[in-house]
Amino acid sequence: MVEDIHFSTMTTEPFHIGYRALAANISDIAAMGGKPTSYLVSIVIPKKWSAKSLHQIYDGMKQLAKDYRMDLIGGDTVSGKQLTLSITVIGTVNADKVRYRNSAREDDIIFVTGTLGDAACGLHLLLNKDQMYSDKYQYFLNRHQLPPQPRIDFINTCTAIDRITLNDVSDGIANELNEIADASHKKLVIDFDTIPVHTLLADFTKEQQTAWKLSGGEDFELVGTVSVDNWIQLKEAALKTNTPITAIGKVKNDAKNNGSVWLNHNNQLKKLDKSGYTHLRR
Amino acid sequence: MVEDIHFSTMTTEPFHIGYRALAANISDIAAMGGKPTSYLVSIVIPKKWSAKSLHQIYDGMKQLAKDYRMDLIGGDTVSGKQLTLSITVIGTVNADKVRYRNSAREDDIIFVTGTLGDAACGLHLLLNKDQMYSDKYQYFLNRHQLPPQPRIDFINTCTAIDRITLNDVSDGIANELNEIADASHKKLVIDFDTIPVHTLLADFTKEQQTAWKLSGGEDFELVGTVSVDNWIQLKEAALKTNTPITAIGKVKNDAKNNGSVWLNHNNQLKKLDKSGYTHLRR
Repeated sequence: MVEDIHFSTMTTEPFHIGYRALAANISDIAAMGGKPTSYLVSIVIPKKWSAKSLHQIYDGMKQLAKDYRMDLIGGDTVSGKQLTLSITVIGTVNADKVRYRNSAREDDIIFVTGTLGDAACGLHLLLNKDQMYSDKYQYFLNRHQLPPQPRIDFINTCTAIDRITLNDVSDGIANELNEIADASHKKLVIDFDTIPVHTLLADFTKEQQTAWKLSGGEDFELVGTVSVDNWIQLKEAALKTNTPITAIGKVKNDAKNNGSVWLNHNNQLKKLDKSGYTHLRR
Repeated sequence: MVEDIHFSTMTTEPFHIGYRALAANISDIAAMGGKPTSYLVSIVIPKKWSAKSLHQIYDGMKQLAKDYRMDLIGGDTVSGKQLTLSITVIGTVNADKVRYRNSAREDDIIFVTGTLGDAACGLHLLLNKDQMYSDKYQYFLNRHQLPPQPRIDFINTCTAIDRITLNDVSDGIANELNEIADASHKKLVIDFDTIPVHTLLADFTKEQQTAWKLSGGEDFELVGTVSVDNWIQLKEAALKTNTPITAIGKVKNDAKNNGSVWLNHNNQLKKLDKSGYTHLRR
């Protein structure tokens, strides 16, 4: 994560920079079905940064690491022009329970955890303090600054299920669903109205809501597919770990359109690009 | 490794930047007695860099990785102001053969592999092309740009030896010996004239030779201590793996001076600081 590209000190405190950066990496471990065990941190720090700010970055990481009993096992701190944070998280997973993007099958249920677009809304509020910014929306600010814990507990409660196709929502669900469709050579059909969002998101314009829920990144939720037979088991694991989970669509086998994602919205079926852009079938 | 801090594109080709950065990390694995198995690379790349140069950085790493059958298993490429290379190397080692800095005992022989100061001399030649620069010294240029392979094979041939105290020469032997003295709470006494250097180093001034052999970094050699009983075994492992090895001193137990390094030079015993600075006993 590089300053002014992946975060700005205008909207993010050092503590939150550390917390979010580690959360993003733990989320990658969740997306493989694993448990994080340790991490390494290399920081490039400009001379203008104080030792105190540097410690706050580490404190942000430590708070999250403590919950998973992860040890900081190495890394480096060097000086440079631009704050840069490079984290490696190491985790473990049973060889037969590694989750991939390429295992979706016809008739699978497509699911997503949590609510989408929260972090993107939070960032918007921080960048536009004069407009909608108010205490009412503190929830969204938190979701940008201190995102919820990656879904490690949930996915590790699903080990009885042989096959779960999985990805984590780091760039936006439009991108992540396309990765699954592409890797699995299947057509994914999503019901737009079922994509879970926080109720307060309705206060924003339709365009904002759509952009955030389809392309808002860094929610650190999981998106995936599971067979109809395993759907109940998956919901039980979600319940056990206090993980909101929602079915948002179905996997289809359609030789002409395998590898693509389609959005069912206002009774129209539109193709959903990686970027979140939709267009009618050509 | 950060551009203009750890390397300069004035003296280092992209291929060599990649090669050296990975070599430095593999050397850390050698210093623990391990074998590297895989690596992750995160690169921050300024927009002015071409895709070709970026590929050359990866090619430099791949050339070295191939020799150890290491897989590139992850990482990231992002844009930023300053070329920054963050590498994590993962390796394995039997739990009872991990090598540390804190295990030196009284009467141990202090040894070092290869020759010291070569990379520092190479860098000097590249920075001062008008002076000593000539084909005659190509050896030193190579040692700066394409350092020899880290001593993985050698140290993995020593697994029959229970205790080897070990460090790798990344910042200069003065620094690395002080780390061992400090961690082991012992006094290390080094014979200055036994420190191995390349014959051509004699062409340079006495001051340069001394500075480079004591404080020249990035030679990626190993320095350590071993009991007198195991010295023959260590030399046999060195012979088997074509690794030059030299005894350069002895470990002493001296309550007043444990934790420090002493240099026997011109019949004077001088204290050797981490920085390579020497001063008479006070």
